[in-house]
Amino acid sequence: MNERIRGVLAPVVTPFQRDLSPDPKRLIGHCRWLLSQHCGLAVFGTNSEANSMSAAERMKLLDELVGAGIDAERMMPGTGCCSLSETVELTTHAVNHGCAGVLMLPPFYYKVVGEEGLYRYFSEVVQRVGDARLRIYLYHIPPVAIVGITPRLVERLLPAYPTAIAGMKDSSGDWNNTKTFLDAFAVRNSASGQSAALPFDVFVGSESFLLANMRNGGAGTISATANVNAAATHQLYAELDPLRQRTLQRPETANNPDRADKLQTKLNVVREVFARTSWPSMIAALKQAIAMAGNDPEWARVRPPLVELTTKQARNLAAELEEIGFAIAPRHLPGLPAQ
Amino acid sequence: MNERIRGVLAPVVTPFQRDLSPDPKRLIGHCRWLLSQHCGLAVFGTNSEANSMSAAERMKLLDELVGAGIDAERMMPGTGCCSLSETVELTTHAVNHGCAGVLMLPPFYYKVVGEEGLYRYFSEVVQRVGDARLRIYLYHIPPVAIVGITPRLVERLLPAYPTAIAGMKDSSGDWNNTKTFLDAFAVRNSASGQSAALPFDVFVGSESFLLANMRNGGAGTISATANVNAAATHQLYAELDPLRQRTLQRPETANNPDRADKLQTKLNVVREVFARTSWPSMIAALKQAIAMAGNDPEWARVRPPLVELTTKQARNLAAELEEIGFAIAPRHLPGLPAQ
Repeated sequence: MNERIRGVLAPVVTPFQRDLSPDPKRLIGHCRWLLSQHCGLAVFGTNSEANSMSAAERMKLLDELVGAGIDAERMMPGTGCCSLSETVELTTHAVNHGCAGVLMLPPFYYKVVGEEGLYRYFSEVVQRVGDARLRIYLYHIPPVAIVGITPRLVERLLPAYPTAIAGMKDSSGDWNNTKTFLDAFAVRNSASGQSAALPFDVFVGSESFLLANMRNGGAGTISATANVNAAATHQLYAELDPLRQRTLQRPETANNPDRADKLQTKLNVVREVFARTSWPSMIAALKQAIAMAGNDPEWARVRPPLVELTTKQARNLAAELEEIGFAIAPRHLPGLPAQ
Repeated sequence: MNERIRGVLAPVVTPFQRDLSPDPKRLIGHCRWLLSQHCGLAVFGTNSEANSMSAAERMKLLDELVGAGIDAERMMPGTGCCSLSETVELTTHAVNHGCAGVLMLPPFYYKVVGEEGLYRYFSEVVQRVGDARLRIYLYHIPPVAIVGITPRLVERLLPAYPTAIAGMKDSSGDWNNTKTFLDAFAVRNSASGQSAALPFDVFVGSESFLLANMRNGGAGTISATANVNAAATHQLYAELDPLRQRTLQRPETANNPDRADKLQTKLNVVREVFARTSWPSMIAALKQAIAMAGNDPEWARVRPPLVELTTKQARNLAAELEEIGFAIAPRHLPGLPAQ
């Protein structure tokens, strides 16, 4: 097996065409740009409007990405649906493409399900996919899915499926929750010193927790803002990555112990602008920012039930980004005019 | 066009086989029994575990039901998914089968969506299905979907799509909410006296509100308990149905004005047993009751993330049903032994 995926991943925003069908050309361009910024591809996440697409649309898009040469080992597609059958189908499809892992929502329709039901659900998925290459990252996003991932659930799943249950993404926005998982699973495993002990890799759902996560044994971040601020986010990750620190001499870190804190503060400033402007979610604001950067209004489109920013909101976003001196690189596509 | 569907409908529970695939034979038997009790078929509802099935599984099951001669004009399949594309696909499929209507959840993944986004979503669905036979019943079930249907949304949709937006199911459990919709849309339309005015048909999500709903201009109920108590629920509906009351002499009603209240009270007693025993939801309890009645344990199975009743819970359910003197007719299937 290859090394597990770590570092900064973007829940890649999905461009849509005029008829609201996914736009593979623009998506491929965006993915290439993200990869060039050392950013992994958590395609089909919450910020990708994945649940606004059908299973068939998602599989076709993944086929098109891989077909265009996008490296599957840098991809962690979202595959968790409400139904066992669709989750198994999407997960099998991703594994067969050689994806580094899958980001898996719990089934999120029924809200008062117990731990036993979720344990049975994930067990069925692992057993039905039945592939040693499977790496599941459990997706905890209680503000959206309502149904969450508890430490007790991980405590049951991890010994039962030690290679398949590879980690989690914590989008609770609650550092204490992340710390609980790190202490219980990530740190314990890495501290055990057994070479056979597999890590449980915790990604934070916002880069505002990246520094804290890496200092406490985490694996990185899968964050919406990486869609527009990947390089700076990776810079902080690289500063902190324990594997790199072990193998590289980094004199600038030694000379400047506050460097990481300063990088974190800079990331937070950018995130706050998108979080502020972004009612009902960051998604429309991120797409608007990409549209503005490339002078490509097609990028701004979202699928209902989401709505685009209003002209006024878009103007405010542009003004606030200018105020903090933040510029997004345009995503040039073959055949589209450059700026 | 035929007359609109009214009265009592069951969100038909879905039997699963040992490998968790849907069991069309048992489902057909159950549907035939419900139809024999004057009960319409809201297949693929919340109680049907519809969202635990893939779009493909749902379409295949509907094909099998229609293929077995189940009357599509007595069916209102659930077709609302998170994605516009799957909702359009399932709805088109149901309309092409000649279903009386479709019960449509709002897109329920993103939780903080506004009315504008929902309006765009339902508009897209109506326009993409593009069929004059389409009858949508908006499904308001805030405890599960979180995203709800507001009066303001109906106020925008109804004039834009007066034939396609046919009514709603209110599973809020809040009579004041139902009354608001009845007063704003159902009663107003029927009181206008214009023959061109189309009714907005409000179904309550629990038969405990059936009497109140019918007395205030409602159309009926789509209730979980109808899976096991259809005949008695229909009896109350028939007592109250304004169309019937206009055309039939019903001396027993005149002689006994409390009759409807007494029927309602009897229904409530049965419902309470299923509501009480039914953690995490009524679904496992309803299936267990059908399994016990027909001595057919296969019926008890649910798909994860739901779990079956424990032996103790099943025993309690049986005891409580016996205590209130409630017996469920067995669902005999060709080839299965009768009791």
